[in-house]
Amino acid sequence: MIIVMKNGASQEELAEVEKKIIALGYQPHVIHGETRNVVGAVGDERGKEKLQIIESMQGVERVVPILKPYKLASREVQPEPSEIEIVPGLGIGGKEFVVVAGPCSVESQKQICETAEAVKQSGARLLRGGAFKPRTSPYSFQGMEEDGLKLLAEARKLTGLPIVTEVVNPRDVELVAKYADIMQVGARNTQNFALLKMLGQLDKPILLKRGMAVTIQEFLMSAEYILSEGNRRVILCERGIRTFETATRNTLDISAVPVLKQQTHLPVMIDPSHATGHSHLVPSMCYAAAAAGADGLLVEVHPCPEEASSDGPQSLRPAEFDAMMKKLRAFVEVTGRKMAG
Amino acid sequence: MIIVMKNGASQEELAEVEKKIIALGYQPHVIHGETRNVVGAVGDERGKEKLQIIESMQGVERVVPILKPYKLASREVQPEPSEIEIVPGLGIGGKEFVVVAGPCSVESQKQICETAEAVKQSGARLLRGGAFKPRTSPYSFQGMEEDGLKLLAEARKLTGLPIVTEVVNPRDVELVAKYADIMQVGARNTQNFALLKMLGQLDKPILLKRGMAVTIQEFLMSAEYILSEGNRRVILCERGIRTFETATRNTLDISAVPVLKQQTHLPVMIDPSHATGHSHLVPSMCYAAAAAGADGLLVEVHPCPEEASSDGPQSLRPAEFDAMMKKLRAFVEVTGRKMAG
Amino acid sequence: MIIVMKNGASQEELAEVEKKIIALGYQPHVIHGETRNVVGAVGDERGKEKLQIIESMQGVERVVPILKPYKLASREVQPEPSEIEIVPGLGIGGKEFVVVAGPCSVESQKQICETAEAVKQSGARLLRGGAFKPRTSPYSFQGMEEDGLKLLAEARKLTGLPIVTEVVNPRDVELVAKYADIMQVGARNTQNFALLKMLGQLDKPILLKRGMAVTIQEFLMSAEYILSEGNRRVILCERGIRTFETATRNTLDISAVPVLKQQTHLPVMIDPSHATGHSHLVPSMCYAAAAAGADGLLVEVHPCPEEASSDGPQSLRPAEFDAMMKKLRAFVEVTGRKMAG
Amino acid sequence: MIIVMKNGASQEELAEVEKKIIALGYQPHVIHGETRNVVGAVGDERGKEKLQIIESMQGVERVVPILKPYKLASREVQPEPSEIEIVPGLGIGGKEFVVVAGPCSVESQKQICETAEAVKQSGARLLRGGAFKPRTSPYSFQGMEEDGLKLLAEARKLTGLPIVTEVVNPRDVELVAKYADIMQVGARNTQNFALLKMLGQLDKPILLKRGMAVTIQEFLMSAEYILSEGNRRVILCERGIRTFETATRNTLDISAVPVLKQQTHLPVMIDPSHATGHSHLVPSMCYAAAAAGADGLLVEVHPCPEEASSDGPQSLRPAEFDAMMKKLRAFVEVTGRKMAG
Repeated sequence: MIIVMKNGASQEELAEVEKKIIALGYQPHVIHGETRNVVGAVGDERGKEKLQIIESMQGVERVVPILKPYKLASREVQPEPSEIEIVPGLGIGGKEFVVVAGPCSVESQKQICETAEAVKQSGARLLRGGAFKPRTSPYSFQGMEEDGLKLLAEARKLTGLPIVTEVVNPRDVELVAKYADIMQVGARNTQNFALLKMLGQLDKPILLKRGMAVTIQEFLMSAEYILSEGNRRVILCERGIRTFETATRNTLDISAVPVLKQQTHLPVMIDPSHATGHSHLVPSMCYAAAAAGADGLLVEVHPCPEEASSDGPQSLRPAEFDAMMKKLRAFVEVTGRKMAG
Repeated sequence: MIIVMKNGASQEELAEVEKKIIALGYQPHVIHGETRNVVGAVGDERGKEKLQIIESMQGVERVVPILKPYKLASREVQPEPSEIEIVPGLGIGGKEFVVVAGPCSVESQKQICETAEAVKQSGARLLRGGAFKPRTSPYSFQGMEEDGLKLLAEARKLTGLPIVTEVVNPRDVELVAKYADIMQVGARNTQNFALLKMLGQLDKPILLKRGMAVTIQEFLMSAEYILSEGNRRVILCERGIRTFETATRNTLDISAVPVLKQQTHLPVMIDPSHATGHSHLVPSMCYAAAAAGADGLLVEVHPCPEEASSDGPQSLRPAEFDAMMKKLRAFVEVTGRKMAG
Repeated sequence: MIIVMKNGASQEELAEVEKKIIALGYQPHVIHGETRNVVGAVGDERGKEKLQIIESMQGVERVVPILKPYKLASREVQPEPSEIEIVPGLGIGGKEFVVVAGPCSVESQKQICETAEAVKQSGARLLRGGAFKPRTSPYSFQGMEEDGLKLLAEARKLTGLPIVTEVVNPRDVELVAKYADIMQVGARNTQNFALLKMLGQLDKPILLKRGMAVTIQEFLMSAEYILSEGNRRVILCERGIRTFETATRNTLDISAVPVLKQQTHLPVMIDPSHATGHSHLVPSMCYAAAAAGADGLLVEVHPCPEEASSDGPQSLRPAEFDAMMKKLRAFVEVTGRKMAG
Repeated sequence: MIIVMKNGASQEELAEVEKKIIALGYQPHVIHGETRNVVGAVGDERGKEKLQIIESMQGVERVVPILKPYKLASREVQPEPSEIEIVPGLGIGGKEFVVVAGPCSVESQKQICETAEAVKQSGARLLRGGAFKPRTSPYSFQGMEEDGLKLLAEARKLTGLPIVTEVVNPRDVELVAKYADIMQVGARNTQNFALLKMLGQLDKPILLKRGMAVTIQEFLMSAEYILSEGNRRVILCERGIRTFETATRNTLDISAVPVLKQQTHLPVMIDPSHATGHSHLVPSMCYAAAAAGADGLLVEVHPCPEEASSDGPQSLRPAEFDAMMKKLRAFVEVTGRKMAG
């Protein structure tokens, strides 16, 4: 941590800052500059927050953190990438590029089972589908809840595809965990810390989506919430951030892939469906994600988008998904990874 | 809802869209344009969502909603402003400009009681203080929980100031409601719909903060979640949105005040402390909020910011708060409202 | 400037960085930390840029600037506020709160002269009107050019109001300077450095608008371009930044007022018309601007907005402007300033 | 254009709107809705702007444009993609994926000639280098101006690589055109309409960069400025937009590639160097751009980034560039395109 003193701060103010730094358990080192002094506070500032409050002291202009505030998520603590095992033979973050596909919402047995069979056929390795839906409007379809979970389990039985499904309420964690192979935290819950803490106590992989206005550093702090409770199986997912551009639903932050790959050992997936909001934009974003070095994709697929209860306009039809997967395979091979099937 | 057909869409595609509009319970009206056709779908689209899926049909370019998607929050349903009664003799949204003040976190009996007495002295009408803290870092102070609520109740007993405090977990709603006069939903939970639904079933005023990346329309949809469950006592609070500017913690969207005042009957408050993140910027934003027509303020005050467990740099000292309140009073009078004391 | 070394950077890499710092004319001070070293480079870094390139050296994680990069615009160089004299008896940045009003574009003699008389009557001190219009579409009205300037001069003769008008092309600087009392740089030209340099050589006040995606620091750097060429009469104008919110044309960054007031001695005005884009939102933003401590306003007024060649929807009618000015006066008085008339 | 009337607008107000629509040369079609009426105005609204002013009329809630405002840039006017010929045998937008490489600024004969030879060796097809530099700070290196252009011409003679270089001042258009094979418009000048109009009169390809806060629609309107003056050789370049994320210099809007490809026939390039600001993030963004369907890349390469006069931290060294190009070739082949060499 670097404390920048104001131009004209007094000797007494500087001395107070030094005393405070020592009181907080760090070592102060003053550098006397031409127009102002700066004080370095030596000590591991991760896992602490106290130094920030020095900003409130007399004579202090600002406080500049030097270390990243996360530990367990960082490459410094674990340099090699984490491969998260989902079920025996299926890992995310390793040699395989993993595609998760399925509808936004589970709507019926026919819908989920047909979709599951179709996406498996095309090479998807997991099935996604929402049973608890966080919708902007209280008047929109809110999901089938436990009935939806049961249908997902049926589709899994039929196809062998493990299930990714979202949990939105800490109260439902136990229920969803009975059915899910991966618990998903949606973009509106990236900083729902009560939920994250409970998921940190599960023995189950967590797919953590980035919130629309969450910086990469804050995203990793949310992962840290789960990791610090003991659950080390966290998969990150970039799904578009909110910007001024309205041609797309959100703006896919594709450079988050190499930034995250440098800063964390956790796997990184991309959700091009929510990022773009329009199905015709999805395939090219799938290819870009693979080329950028992502570990996999979450893609919305619906047998009949014009009948979907939610997110129809961004869902691929099974035939469109199949065509995309064929072309995707070639890009994945260039990256030195493989795809199933 | 207006459906814009693609340039070159076929007669069959247009006929399918018309059929679908009828099937969804609306009346189609086609306008034949020079380069493309548009179809108006007549019928009250609020409280429905189905029409949006027409965007997935063949030949459709895009779907443009005409009505706002909220009902109970809108001025069309209730033209006159709502004054929310907190306790007998104290309403928000009426003739009085109401200031809520207090520390970010409750830290000790001495801290909260001293602050309560000081802010009351300066003219604050409610006491704020967090017992459950949603913090970006798992290593930061997470709040005193029920012990904090008890200290808030003690400060209320001492000063008579009603209490505003945050709830972050649906599990804690009942507990917090035992102590709070107003339940606060923080910016990270504006779209925590599970929480909103529970709060909609309480008989207790709710202070709903706007999320950092939540549009004004989405903000009103979140209010609609609470209203549609039966709780009509919702107070809105703008607290800064996330932009590219880094000189301030967030960017106070001051024009949200007149926009909200036009669209909704609900009261609108401003939180300049979280919006700016720096205590020296707070007073001028308090004056601007009053001048813009807000119904009140939430201001962070701490007896000793450099010892605060959270948000020290944005907290006013009691003397600074007192000076601000004196000047604020003159601005409030110009608006034709009054302040207590 | 603080150079943060990578965790694990070698002694040689550190030595190279120290050597480079010395070569660039600074003094290096190394602080040995627990997980990494940081190096302070002592010396006045303003007006230089060289140190940033140390970021490309082996073993360097990042470079953190300590000083603001502007000099002449800063409060450190000139602590007292600048009052910019426009014509004898009229200054911006002093005791008077100054309102500039007029149409977006000059359209006819009748239009500009009627508007000038009306706004003068209501208390405006300068007349605005565009003769060169930077329009998003090449098919939109592009302004009356020199004919428009002549009409502005006629309106000035009639009313005595000095003229603010925009220049968009370095080629036209001389021409516009023949007519204008204040040269305006629009939001699309805030970083048109060729234009700024030419304006820096004029003996004429410059009204510099903030660009839609320009940070406050970059804004001051643009002012520095003008100041460093010798022209010290620069007036800053915040007119809304681009964010995700679509209810307003832009988002008025009202906290830019106290931030700028702290960092620079230059006067700060607000343009609520471009910031909001809707005339019914303008009055409350005028009041907020005065309360926040701005030095004045730019307000669009048109005798008949539904016939305006540009920006009709955000223009006040003369009667609306007059009503706003009456109420504004009371807010201005609270701030301790005065308004003409 | 769709005009949405207010809930409760009178018959007279509706009639006035209809009359105005006719006066502006369109045909009105009223749809009577349950809570409000909407009026469709039939007629080609592109190349006009007048209808927007209806928003200022009594009883009107808002005006919704239906058509895109650009014509010459659109796919509707020209469905097949444009291949822009630079020199005989080299086109952008056709079968070849074209890489432009070189330093940010021209600094010396040695620097530019060595770089030109190195990037040509690796497969670059054009040389980039700035002689006129728009810098945020007036104290930063501003470019070698005509001397720089001469050095670029020398490097072209040596290697045969055509030159891309930026023009920032309308005054310099003629001068730069004497040397450049492609004239570049930088991100700060995307809406410098005076400059665009002059470039529209040249017989020379224009590389138009997207501004940091320019929407895709506005970007195409800027292209339309050039096209409508008669110059049809416009190449678009996405180079990152400004968002709240600070881990990268800007946020590469990769989905702009498929959006632009759908809306316009003009070629689309990507500049990953300015988008990310850090050289280690550049290669993965090059691969993503190719996979997303871009027509080419602009990449900053410098023989010694730690000595660069500008943008060192985002420049690849020649060996890094060479390694990137080798891997890039494999991704490009999957897209069905080819690279030179």
